[in-house]
Amino acid sequence: MHSFIELSKIFDEKFNTRHFPEHTPTLYDPAQYILQLGGKRVRPVCVLMGNELFDEIHEDAYFAAAGIELFHNFSLIHDDIMDKAPVRRGMPTLHAKYGESTALLAGDVMFVRAYEYLNRMKAGHLQKVLHLFNNTAKAVCEGQQLDMDFEKRDTVSMDEYLHMITLKTSVLLAASLQIGAILGGTGERNQQHIYEFGKNLGIAFQVQDDYLDAFGDPAKFGKQIGGDIIANKKTFLMIHALEAADESTKLSLLQSMTDNPADKVDKVLAIFKKCNIDGWAKELKEKYLQTALQHLQDIAVTEKRKACLAELASFFIERDS
Amino acid sequence: MHSFIELSKIFDEKFNTRHFPEHTPTLYDPAQYILQLGGKRVRPVCVLMGNELFDEIHEDAYFAAAGIELFHNFSLIHDDIMDKAPVRRGMPTLHAKYGESTALLAGDVMFVRAYEYLNRMKAGHLQKVLHLFNNTAKAVCEGQQLDMDFEKRDTVSMDEYLHMITLKTSVLLAASLQIGAILGGTGERNQQHIYEFGKNLGIAFQVQDDYLDAFGDPAKFGKQIGGDIIANKKTFLMIHALEAADESTKLSLLQSMTDNPADKVDKVLAIFKKCNIDGWAKELKEKYLQTALQHLQDIAVTEKRKACLAELASFFIERDS
Repeated sequence: MHSFIELSKIFDEKFNTRHFPEHTPTLYDPAQYILQLGGKRVRPVCVLMGNELFDEIHEDAYFAAAGIELFHNFSLIHDDIMDKAPVRRGMPTLHAKYGESTALLAGDVMFVRAYEYLNRMKAGHLQKVLHLFNNTAKAVCEGQQLDMDFEKRDTVSMDEYLHMITLKTSVLLAASLQIGAILGGTGERNQQHIYEFGKNLGIAFQVQDDYLDAFGDPAKFGKQIGGDIIANKKTFLMIHALEAADESTKLSLLQSMTDNPADKVDKVLAIFKKCNIDGWAKELKEKYLQTALQHLQDIAVTEKRKACLAELASFFIERDS
Repeated sequence: MHSFIELSKIFDEKFNTRHFPEHTPTLYDPAQYILQLGGKRVRPVCVLMGNELFDEIHEDAYFAAAGIELFHNFSLIHDDIMDKAPVRRGMPTLHAKYGESTALLAGDVMFVRAYEYLNRMKAGHLQKVLHLFNNTAKAVCEGQQLDMDFEKRDTVSMDEYLHMITLKTSVLLAASLQIGAILGGTGERNQQHIYEFGKNLGIAFQVQDDYLDAFGDPAKFGKQIGGDIIANKKTFLMIHALEAADESTKLSLLQSMTDNPADKVDKVLAIFKKCNIDGWAKELKEKYLQTALQHLQDIAVTEKRKACLAELASFFIERDS
C-alpha cells in the first residue's frame, strides 16, 4: 500500500510527458501548456487509491488516472474561459496566453485525449467505467451551469448550493475513487461506499474552503481572506447567515452586499461571528467528514488497507480549524 | 437496401426526440435547441449506409449514428463561437441566443452525450469504434485550428489547404462510413476502401463548394455568390490562381484583395476565368470523385449493394456543374 505522497510521485513520473503530437503546435502546445502548470493530482491519485484498496495497482488504473486528470484540466480550461480568469497557479490561463478560440479548441482536444486514455484499458471494465465517466462529465457541466445561474440570482437556498457544489467538485472525486474500485474488481456495494466516501469528503472540503475564505489564517490560506465576501459569493457561510439571521441582521448583511462599503469584509465577518456561523461551519464540515468516514468503514476490506484513504481525508480536512 | 432519402427519414424518426434530461434546463434546453434546427443528417446516414453495405442495419449502427450527429452538432456549436457566427440554418446560433458561456458548456455536454450513445453499442466493436471516433475528433479540432491559423497568414499552399479541408470536413464523413462498416463486421481492407471513398468524396464536395461560391447559379446556390472572394478566403480556387497566374496577374489579384474595390468580385472572377480556374476546378473535383468511386469499386461486395453509395456520391456532386 502506498501513501498519497508516494502515489502522487508515481503518477507524476508517468504523467509528466508530452500528451499530444508534435504536429499542429498551434493547437497542441497550448494544450500541453496547462498540464505543465502542475497541481496536486488529487483525482488521479484517488483512482490509484481506489484501485489499491482492493488489489495491486493495475496498469488500467494508470490509464484511467491519466484520463481523469486530462478531463479535470479540460474543465479548468473551459471554466477559466467562462469565468474570464486571468491567472491559474500563478501563470496566465490558457485563453489569456493563447486567445479564447485556441483555448476552447485545446480544451476540446484535451477532452478527446481523456477518452483515448480510458479507451486503452482492457475491454472487461471499459463500458462500466465509461458509463460512470460520462455521467460524471455531464454532472460537472451541470454544476458549472448552475454556478453561473446562481451568480445572476439574488437568493440561493442551501439545498441548491449543496447540489451545485456536489456536481461541480465532489462527483469527480467520488467517481475517481469508484473507477479505481471498478478496476480493482470489487462489487457494487463497495463501489457505492467508496463513491459516497469521496462525495462527502468533497463536500467537507468545500465547506472548509468556504470557511477558510472567511476565517482562515492569511499566512496559510494562500488567497486573500474575504475574497468570497468581496465578490458577494453565495457560499455555505453566506447562505446560512441569510437563512439563520434575524430580520435586522439579515437586512444589514444584504445592505453590505449592495453598498460595498470599504470595511465590508470586517462588517460581514462581524455578523458571521455574531450568528456563530464559524461554529456552525465547523460542525457542518465535521458532519460530512464523519459521513465520509462511515462509508469508508463500511467498505468490506481490512482496516489496514483503508489507512491511506483515512490519511487522504485528514490530508484534506484540518480537524482543528 | 435503402436509399439516402429513406435512411434519412428512418434516422430522423429515431433521432427527433429530446436527447437531454428535463432538469437543469438552463443547460439542456440550449443544447436541445441546435438539434431542432434540423439538417441533412448526412453523417449519421453514412453510418447506416456503411453498415447496410455489409449486413442488415444493426441496432448498434443507430447508436453510432446518433453519436456522430451529436458530435457534429457539438463541433458546430463551438465553431460558431470561434467564428462569431450570428446565424445557422436561418436561426440565431446557440451563443447568439443563450450567451457564449452556456454555448460552450452546451457543446461540452453534447460531446459527452455523443460518447454516451457510442457506449450503448455492444462491447464487441466498442474499442475499435472509439479509437476511430477519437482520432476523428482530434482531426476535426486540428482542422479548425489550422483554418484559424490560415486566416492570419498571407499565403497558404495547396497542400496545406487540402490537409486542413480533409481534417475539417472529410474525415468525419469517412469515419462515419467506416464505423458503419466496422459494425457490419467487414474486414480491414473493405473498411479502408469505404474510408477513402468518404474522404475523397468529402474533398470533391469541398472543391465543388469553393467552385459554386465563385461560379454557381445564384438561384440554386443559396448563399451570396462571391462570398469567399469578398472575405479574402483562401479557397481551392484562390490558392490555385495565386500559384498558376503570371506575375502581373498575381499582382492584380493580390491588389484586389488588399484594396477591396467595389467591383472586387467581378475583377477576381475575370482573373479566375482568364486563368481557366473554373475548368481546373471542375477537373479537380472530377479527380477526387473518380478516386472515391474507384475505392467504392474496390470494396469486395456485390455491385448491387453499392448502388446507394454511388447514389450518395451523385447526390452530393453535380457532374455537370
